[in-house]
Amino acid sequence: MDVIASPKQTQDQIRKLRGSGESIGVVPTMGALHAGHLSLVEAARAQCDIVVVTIFVNPTQFAPGEDFEQYPRTLEADLKLCRQSQADIVFTPSADEMYSVNSQTSVVVSKMTQILEGASRPTHFDGVTTIVAKLFNITSPDRAYFGQKDFQQQLVIRRMVTDLDFPVEVVTCPIIRDSDGLAMSSRNRYLSTTERQQALAINQSLEETEQLATSGKHTAAELQTRLNDLLITADGIDLDYATIADAATLLPANSDCEELVAMVAARVGTTRLIDNRVFQIR
Amino acid sequence: MDVIASPKQTQDQIRKLRGSGESIGVVPTMGALHAGHLSLVEAARAQCDIVVVTIFVNPTQFAPGEDFEQYPRTLEADLKLCRQSQADIVFTPSADEMYSVNSQTSVVVSKMTQILEGASRPTHFDGVTTIVAKLFNITSPDRAYFGQKDFQQQLVIRRMVTDLDFPVEVVTCPIIRDSDGLAMSSRNRYLSTTERQQALAINQSLEETEQLATSGKHTAAELQTRLNDLLITADGIDLDYATIADAATLLPANSDCEELVAMVAARVGTTRLIDNRVFQIR
Repeated sequence: MDVIASPKQTQDQIRKLRGSGESIGVVPTMGALHAGHLSLVEAARAQCDIVVVTIFVNPTQFAPGEDFEQYPRTLEADLKLCRQSQADIVFTPSADEMYSVNSQTSVVVSKMTQILEGASRPTHFDGVTTIVAKLFNITSPDRAYFGQKDFQQQLVIRRMVTDLDFPVEVVTCPIIRDSDGLAMSSRNRYLSTTERQQALAINQSLEETEQLATSGKHTAAELQTRLNDLLITADGIDLDYATIADAATLLPANSDCEELVAMVAARVGTTRLIDNRVFQIR
Repeated sequence: MDVIASPKQTQDQIRKLRGSGESIGVVPTMGALHAGHLSLVEAARAQCDIVVVTIFVNPTQFAPGEDFEQYPRTLEADLKLCRQSQADIVFTPSADEMYSVNSQTSVVVSKMTQILEGASRPTHFDGVTTIVAKLFNITSPDRAYFGQKDFQQQLVIRRMVTDLDFPVEVVTCPIIRDSDGLAMSSRNRYLSTTERQQALAINQSLEETEQLATSGKHTAAELQTRLNDLLITADGIDLDYATIADAATLLPANSDCEELVAMVAARVGTTRLIDNRVFQIR
């Protein structure tokens, strides 16, 4: 496994591999790897000749006051996990290597980034799309793997890929949950024991909402009211949003939607968590 | 020579060629080809295995009220010239093929696009960088060829390429002038006989400025004053700007600049023309 910090060297090495006919899969991460990330590496391993994991805590997707400084950085453990998961290349640039002081360019997705996570974190998605565009250009992947947990993120990236004609297939992998149902997140390690118990209400309310949906007796609006009620009455949950939307567009759900997504963002203590479930109304 | 309208088909065909080791050069144009464009094709022909010319009058780089509707469209003549210049692929998409109604993504270069052409044409460069990013993703070139006449454009594109890590070498080719000195432009065909005579003042004033510069007796500020004076007193010239800047950054010229660029934009009748010269102060 090659661990490379230089963007140029990574780009050259991967282009050489591509040139000799190898297919490339990239798993963009901010490190602090957990089983969710590893499921992405596993999916890439199954579908691509060369698996590239990128580890970069991208400053531009954190707003002032967010947890950029304290975001967990566990490079040695991450590399060990990458090795165990049979990654071929781990790209670990520094912020200075990724952003020159002269940088003036950003990739901006408009409408879809203004709601939900984008409303709560106004500059977040500009940071995400810009870094992902850069990582795509550095790693020239055939396929790129993202987790469903960041549901809006993978939709925004799909929008960018389509709109800018990136020759990349976006693969979204299912949410991986701990045995108690909590969606895996690098930020879970911020939670105290009590907070972690309280956080379970997020998955539980989503699960109940999905069950109600599959009963076929409730409209999307009723489901959203129920989801919201469950969460605003849950102990220790400071709800940011709980919404039910068209899973293809994030526009308000209606009876024509093929699939719905129930999305939740909430603070538990000082830790902001997100989770979601995709389902159909029978 | 293959003429292809479909972005997907163009992308697939070029990726196949790349995969078999061919180097790709792209010449992005809006058609209405003239000797300036053909010099770009010639440069690409000399350096690359496969030469791709793109012909697309990109609506998003025209502001409301600009000449998008009347911009010359001469596809048959263009294709003939491409064939004569030994292009391999001509990509001729429609606007519908390039921009879906759901498009939400743009590539934005900030500072450098706010001055000069960007001040006069506020949305212009967002349109340019977005379409060029798309064309790069569709044609995956090793090298992309742009004319020095659009001096700010090639600098903005270089900025974008660096900032987003596009694996593309930007090649800037010299301005091609008609025998009377007028810089070749698709818009020259809008000029009446009188206007064309009047337009020659642009090149003449730039030439005089360069001569003054090489004499080594004038500061950049003095040169700019002289250039400006020449143009505001010239018959039929409605000056937009005449400026002398650092050729690497477009920031105000000072004695530390390695190279200066004198840039002019002016209307002659209703036709907006631009021209420039790059030189050193001895």
